[in-house]
Parts: sequence; C-alpha cells; structure tokens
Amino acid sequence: MPAALTPRRRNAAATRDAILISARRAFARSGYDGAGVREIAAGAGVTAMLVNRYFGSKERLFAEVIASTMATPTILTPENLALPNLGQTIARTLVEITKADDTPLEGFLIMLHSASSKRASEIGRGQIEAGHQKTMASALAGNLAPQRAALILSLVAGFQVMRQMMGLSALADADPEDLVVLLTPLFNALIAGESSAG
Amino acid sequence: MPAALTPRRRNAAATRDAILISARRAFARSGYDGAGVREIAAGAGVTAMLVNRYFGSKERLFAEVIASTMATPTILTPENLALPNLGQTIARTLVEITKADDTPLEGFLIMLHSASSKRASEIGRGQIEAGHQKTMASALAGNLAPQRAALILSLVAGFQVMRQMMGLSALADADPEDLVVLLTPLFNALIAGESSAG
Repeated sequence: MPAALTPRRRNAAATRDAILISARRAFARSGYDGAGVREIAAGAGVTAMLVNRYFGSKERLFAEVIASTMATPTILTPENLALPNLGQTIARTLVEITKADDTPLEGFLIMLHSASSKRASEIGRGQIEAGHQKTMASALAGNLAPQRAALILSLVAGFQVMRQMMGLSALADADPEDLVVLLTPLFNALIAGESSAG
Repeated sequence: MPAALTPRRRNAAATRDAILISARRAFARSGYDGAGVREIAAGAGVTAMLVNRYFGSKERLFAEVIASTMATPTILTPENLALPNLGQTIARTLVEITKADDTPLEGFLIMLHSASSKRASEIGRGQIEAGHQKTMASALAGNLAPQRAALILSLVAGFQVMRQMMGLSALADADPEDLVVLLTPLFNALIAGESSAG
C-alpha cells in the first residue's frame, strides 16, 4: 500500500485542506494583515500550533493559499487558451464571472485586501508572476509578451473592481453582449501585439 | 465684510479642512470599516463630537472625502481632456503617476480598501459616477459612452493595482515608453468607440 493512502496520510491531507479552506476565507474577508492564525485555526477546527506545524508561518500559508486559488483558474484555463478567438473568450468569460449577483472570486478578493501589506504584496506578486502572468505570457508571441500579459491581467482586475466590487451601473447594468463587444478588441490588441507595439 | 471672511468662519473652514485631511489619510490606510471617527478626530486635533457636528456621520464624511479626492483629478484634468490625442495623454499620465517609487494616490487607495464594505462601495459608486465617470463619458461621442468611460476607468484602476500596488515586474520594471505604446491604442479604441461598438 503506497504511503499516500495510509489512514494517517489521508488524515494529514484532510487537515491540510481544511486549514487551506479556512485560510482562504479569512484572507478573502480580512486581507493578510487582518486575518490571524488563531482565527484560521479555529475555522478549521484545529489549534494554531497545528497550523504552524503544517505550514511553518502565516507567510507560507498565505503563499500556499494564493497558489491554490491560481491552480483552478476561471479565465486562463487550458481549454480557453487553446481556443482560436482568445480575446473574445477572455472577454466573454470575464463578463460572465462578474455578473452583479455573483460573489467576487476569492483569489481576487485576497489579492485586493492584501495589496496594502508590503509583505503580502511581495508574496502575491511572486505567486502571480509564477502563475497567471507566466501562463498568459506563454500564450503570446512577439515583442513585449510579459508586458502585454501583465496588461491583460490589469484589464481583468480593473474590470472586476469596477463592475463587481464598486458596481458602477454603466457596467453592472449593461447588456453583457455590449461589454463583450467593447472588451474583445482590447484583449485582441494585447494578444496580437504587433500593431500596438510596432 | 462678507461672512466668509470673519475670523469665526475662517476657523470653521480650517477645522473642516483639518478633519477632511485626517479622514482622507485614515480611510486610505484602513478603509471605510477600519477607520474610526475617534481616530480621525485625534488626527485633526479635535473631538469626535466636533467631527460629527461638522459632518453629521462617518458616511457623510466618507462621501465628502471621496468627492474632495475627485475634485483634484490627476488624469481627467480639463487640460488633458482638451488635448487632441486623449488616448495617448491618458496613457502617458497613467504611466507617469504609477512609477515604482511614487506613493499610490490616496483616492485610489481609499476606494480599494473600502471596496469590501457594502455601504462604502455604495457611497464610492455614487461619487465616482457623479465624478470621473461623468467627466469621462461627457468627453466621448457615439454609442455606449457610459460603458466606454467605465472601461477606461477600469483599465486605469487595474493598471494601478498591478503596476503600483502589486508591483508586477513586467510593469514596474518596464520601459515607460513601451507601456505608453501598448496602452495608447487601448484607450484610443475606447475613446473612438465606433469600430469597437459598431
């Protein structure tokens, strides 16, 4: 029987997952500085000591939470990246996931609520650069691919802030199809790159 | 002597300004929920009771702070809006104000740190719609002007988050001129509108 399947290992994995889920919620709600290890532990039904035994520190736990939210992307999925009309696909998915009654994505909330903490920004930056930024840049040909990828992420983030978190009525109440039509050429310009950067 | 110039009126105006400045700092640092009237009062050297006498409530104070940050815009100035190449002007100003060593704009920080509070979002939304959103939409001809204006604000906000707050190196360490070249056609597309929305 492989080690990964022994009951003890299974319990350890379940505890680890419970801590990660509790941490994800706490960081999304209160940001890096606002969320305490004790609160995260209580949410997972374990002691703060156990959280530290599993993750070493709040910083490491935060890094793992960010990595886990990026492991299940909603926009930059392998399927989406393989579609021929990538710009429209990104636009359509973005408009879809920012509907007025939807809950903002936890990964996004965590980033936003933690952006004012210097240490959390550093960790978040590292994770985004190794995750979404790298995924997106790899899908782009031509000059300034990292810059164009980062601008795609900027547009996605700004749209989430303005449509979903601030709820600007020009975006929240718009015909979704109009938004897709307006966003698609922006993403296409960044994906194509040539004319923009040339 | 007009009433506005009597010493009593002058003192009242100075006190009001001191409270607004202290509130702006507190909201930028801690967001709407995090900043207390007592802390804001202490920062202005007055009592919490006086803050309430001048502004009525934390909500009204918050609305006035947001309005005051928008009264002195950095991008949507009348001068910028009158320039022939508006897209490039917005791009250039945005890249300029998000330099790595610059402090993020307080108005932006306030919005970001308060976005998770339902009440603060409502107030912020109202102020943005009456301020930047209206200013930008008025400068646009053609269909879907409010949507295009809101997308311009989205791109500006997202770029500030990714370049200045998260500090993605693809943006923070980029040649500023490359960023202007990449951003300009995006703003131009939203300003022109015709081909995008047609």
